[in-house]
Amino acid sequence: MFSHDLEGAIRVGSAIECIHTYSLIHDDLPALDNDDLRRGKPTSHKVFGEAIAILAGDALLTLAFQTLATAPLEPARGVRVIAEIAAAAGTVDGMVGGQVADVEAGGKPVDQPTIEYIHRSKTAALIRGSIVAGAIAGGAATDDVERLRRFGDYIGWAFQVVDDLLDVEESSATLGKTAGKDRAQAKATYPALYGIEKSRAIAADLERRALAELAFFGERARCLRQLAEFLVARRS
Amino acid sequence: MFSHDLEGAIRVGSAIECIHTYSLIHDDLPALDNDDLRRGKPTSHKVFGEAIAILAGDALLTLAFQTLATAPLEPARGVRVIAEIAAAAGTVDGMVGGQVADVEAGGKPVDQPTIEYIHRSKTAALIRGSIVAGAIAGGAATDDVERLRRFGDYIGWAFQVVDDLLDVEESSATLGKTAGKDRAQAKATYPALYGIEKSRAIAADLERRALAELAFFGERARCLRQLAEFLVARRS
Repeated sequence: MFSHDLEGAIRVGSAIECIHTYSLIHDDLPALDNDDLRRGKPTSHKVFGEAIAILAGDALLTLAFQTLATAPLEPARGVRVIAEIAAAAGTVDGMVGGQVADVEAGGKPVDQPTIEYIHRSKTAALIRGSIVAGAIAGGAATDDVERLRRFGDYIGWAFQVVDDLLDVEESSATLGKTAGKDRAQAKATYPALYGIEKSRAIAADLERRALAELAFFGERARCLRQLAEFLVARRS
Repeated sequence: MFSHDLEGAIRVGSAIECIHTYSLIHDDLPALDNDDLRRGKPTSHKVFGEAIAILAGDALLTLAFQTLATAPLEPARGVRVIAEIAAAAGTVDGMVGGQVADVEAGGKPVDQPTIEYIHRSKTAALIRGSIVAGAIAGGAATDDVERLRRFGDYIGWAFQVVDDLLDVEESSATLGKTAGKDRAQAKATYPALYGIEKSRAIAADLERRALAELAFFGERARCLRQLAEFLVARRS
C-alpha cells in the first residue's frame, strides 16, 4: 500500500505541475502578457510559435486530468481530487476567472475588492487546490482538509502579494522574467494600490494567519511551515 | 436511480459539449485556422478579442472535467469516463495530437498515414470518446464498450472525410463557416489526396464498417444507426 500511496501522491503533484506549466505558457502569449522571458529562457511561443504554444497549453491542461483519472487513487478520492483541481483552475473563484478579471482590469484604476479577487483566484486558488488535493489523496479527515484549505488560501494570497513586490523591487536577471512589467502594463498590483511598505505588512499578516492554521498539526506540519516561510521571504 | 442515471448522462453530454466548444474557439484563433466565421456567426476572438477567446477555451476545457468529477456517477465509472475523455482530447491519439500534426503538415504535401493520423485523432477521437464515455457511464459490459469504441472510431473518421468533402463542395452560406479554406491553407484533406470520387467511396466504406459493429445490438442501437447515417449523408 505504501508504494501505491506514493505513486498516487506523485501523480497529484505531476498533474498540478501540468496545470501550472499550461497557465504560464498561455499567460506569456502575445494576446495575454506578451512575455519573451520565463525562468531566464525564451517563452514557448518565442521558440515554437504561437500555434504550438496554444496547443501545448491545451495538451498539458488535458494531461493533468488524464494523469489524475488514471492515478492509483481510491476512485471516490480520485473524483474529489479532480473536482478540487478543476475548481482551482477554472472560472468563478479559480485561475481562469482571475485571469479574465486581470485582462479586464488592465490599464484601468482598480479598487481593493477587484485586486483581492484577482490575486485570490489567479494565484492563490491553485496553491490552495494543490494543498487540498494532497490532503484528500492522503485520506485526511474533513476538518483537517478545511484547515489546510484556509492555510493554502492565505499562503497563496501572500505569494501573489510578494510576487507583485518582487516585480517592483528586483531585476529581470534575479527574477528570470521581465521585471517592471506590471507597472509598464498598468497591471492591478498591491504596490500600485497600497505602496511597498503596506504591501509588505499585508504579506506578513497573511503569512501569520496561514501559520496559525498549521498550529493544530504541530510537528507534522513542519514542511508546510517551511514552505510558507520560504514563499514570503523569497527574493526571486 | 433513474433520475440519477439521467443526470449522470446529461453531465457527460455537457462535458463533451464543453470540450467540443473549447476546441472550436481555439481552432479558430488567428495563430491556428484564423477563421472569422463559425456556424454563420463571427468567431469568439472576433467578438471578444484574442485574450478572452484563449481564456474562454481554457475555461471550457477545465469546466468539462469539473462537470464530470461532480456528476452523480458511481466514482469508479466517473474516473474511467474522465480518463476516456481526457485521452480523446489530449495528445498521442487525441484531438491536440491531431491538431499539432495538422499544424505541422500545413503547406506541405502529405502522405496517407499522416492524413489518417490527423483525421483519426483530430476529429474521430472525440466522437469515439463521447460514445465510449456514454457506454461506461451507463454501465455497459466490457465487450459492448469495445464494440462501441470501434463504431465510434469508424464513424468519427467518416465524419472528417465528409467534412473535407463539404469544404470543397458547399458554399460558406450552407456550411455557416468559410468554405474552401482547406485548399486555400493547403490543408491535409482526403479530397486533396484522393479526389472527390474516391473520398466519397472511403466515407461510404467507413459507414458500412461502423454499422456492422452495431448489428450485434439489434433494435437497441437504432439511434446510433440513425446518427451514423446522418453524419455521412449531411450537406452542412
